[in-house]
Amino acid sequence: MSNTTEGEIKLRVRYAETDQMGVVYHSNFVIWFEIGRVELMRQLGFRYRDMEQDDDCHMPVADMHVRYKGPVYYDDEIVVRTRLTDVHRSLLRFRYQVFRAGNETVLAEGETTHLVVDKQLNRRSLPQKYVLAFSAATAQ
Amino acid sequence: MSNTTEGEIKLRVRYAETDQMGVVYHSNFVIWFEIGRVELMRQLGFRYRDMEQDDDCHMPVADMHVRYKGPVYYDDEIVVRTRLTDVHRSLLRFRYQVFRAGNETVLAEGETTHLVVDKQLNRRSLPQKYVLAFSAATAQ
Amino acid sequence: MSNTTEGEIKLRVRYAETDQMGVVYHSNFVIWFEIGRVELMRQLGFRYRDMEQDDDCHMPVADMHVRYKGPVYYDDEIVVRTRLTDVHRSLLRFRYQVFRAGNETVLAEGETTHLVVDKQLNRRSLPQKYVLAFSAATAQ
Amino acid sequence: MSNTTEGEIKLRVRYAETDQMGVVYHSNFVIWFEIGRVELMRQLGFRYRDMEQDDDCHMPVADMHVRYKGPVYYDDEIVVRTRLTDVHRSLLRFRYQVFRAGNETVLAEGETTHLVVDKQLNRRSLPQKYVLAFSAATAQ
Repeated sequence: MSNTTEGEIKLRVRYAETDQMGVVYHSNFVIWFEIGRVELMRQLGFRYRDMEQDDDCHMPVADMHVRYKGPVYYDDEIVVRTRLTDVHRSLLRFRYQVFRAGNETVLAEGETTHLVVDKQLNRRSLPQKYVLAFSAATAQ
Repeated sequence: MSNTTEGEIKLRVRYAETDQMGVVYHSNFVIWFEIGRVELMRQLGFRYRDMEQDDDCHMPVADMHVRYKGPVYYDDEIVVRTRLTDVHRSLLRFRYQVFRAGNETVLAEGETTHLVVDKQLNRRSLPQKYVLAFSAATAQ
Repeated sequence: MSNTTEGEIKLRVRYAETDQMGVVYHSNFVIWFEIGRVELMRQLGFRYRDMEQDDDCHMPVADMHVRYKGPVYYDDEIVVRTRLTDVHRSLLRFRYQVFRAGNETVLAEGETTHLVVDKQLNRRSLPQKYVLAFSAATAQ
Repeated sequence: MSNTTEGEIKLRVRYAETDQMGVVYHSNFVIWFEIGRVELMRQLGFRYRDMEQDDDCHMPVADMHVRYKGPVYYDDEIVVRTRLTDVHRSLLRFRYQVFRAGNETVLAEGETTHLVVDKQLNRRSLPQKYVLAFSAATAQ
């Protein structure tokens, strides 16, 4: 069993992600968090695309909390570090930190809570293979 | 039969649509064009949402041309004026102009060509009710 | 002095705001919240664009919490209801609720905390005219 | 002098870039084109961020043409291949192709024309260092 407990992905800030204050517009961090959790799953051996298509498991966000600590600029290379903090039959929690590459100063951090649903948006249980792998990867 | 040949919709520029040059980022005009054509269809008596859900007609963009004439700023009220220029069994063309409200100076203009496809992205014919209404609304 | 304590703005969901689950992608609610608070300020007699340009007051988000209660679909008409809950010299808090027009079921709700900064992102005090008007509009 | 005439950058499609048709929403290709031209410039030794900040050269899009050839899906790895096709004192043209990684089938292609302007959006000449490097990199 893997002992991965966090995923890291490096991203380059896009011009489209800036706003007229000259920094990244705040909603984009939420998109980066998603990239972070999908990469963590990939490191655990699962592709979220297959999870949707093959296993009819979708993970809409039920709750999201973000704290912005410092500005992020166009063309910055940033790192999104993601951890799984809770795994239940039909609910998952992730925690995120955003850094500039090569610098451990936290620029933003947050948490998301996800329900597990089928295509019709009804609650369902996570298949056992995910529960096992995700539980093993849970960090506090 | 309606003699509408153009649709107009007013929009307020969002902060998220600006970039660090202090103007609207260019990809957002493409989203405004879409709002324009959906509103033109609504004025012709059709809701694009129903067209997809009830009639399995989807209209992906096959070709898009945009000319940017002047900057658009945060909180500007803009008008998107849309015309249908070509209607075929399985292809439609729209033309767009973007103005600041109350000012006829064109800030951007463009054209899009759309294929008509089903949910599986296969070409299909537009149902007759749309062909009739859309043809009647065609402007050159 | 105005006794407005909440702002309401109606929006039509854009195709670009949907994702492959067939619902609005969650980061878009954050953009709607911003539209909500700008419209509340407008109802209080202030234009956020002028606040930035004329008074060098910018309000980056420091903290954001969103709870998603139900799906929002393409072409839905939604209402964003916004309240100011805290006004300090250099910090503001807003609360938001998102409804489908004509239906009081809350689809999403959240809070944002904003710092007041100048163009160089240094903390600064909100000019007195805003403090007065915003304090008068504060709702709990 | 470098003999680079095209840049390539690999991107992973984000969930936020999909729409309810289950494919990438068309405006996102425009953002990818921008990433493509910034990476081409980087390969030529220039960082667009410095070009703006240090040399007061900004390159707004004046004209954009995109042809969509096939669907792009969530989590696809795509390649944006970018060429500089025209370099003038105050105008540049780029050409783009989008592929799935490891597959030369063109999924989208396009061209953009850019004016060179200063911070106040007035036309200006491109500094000589850029003219020389960009001209050397021009491909037909």
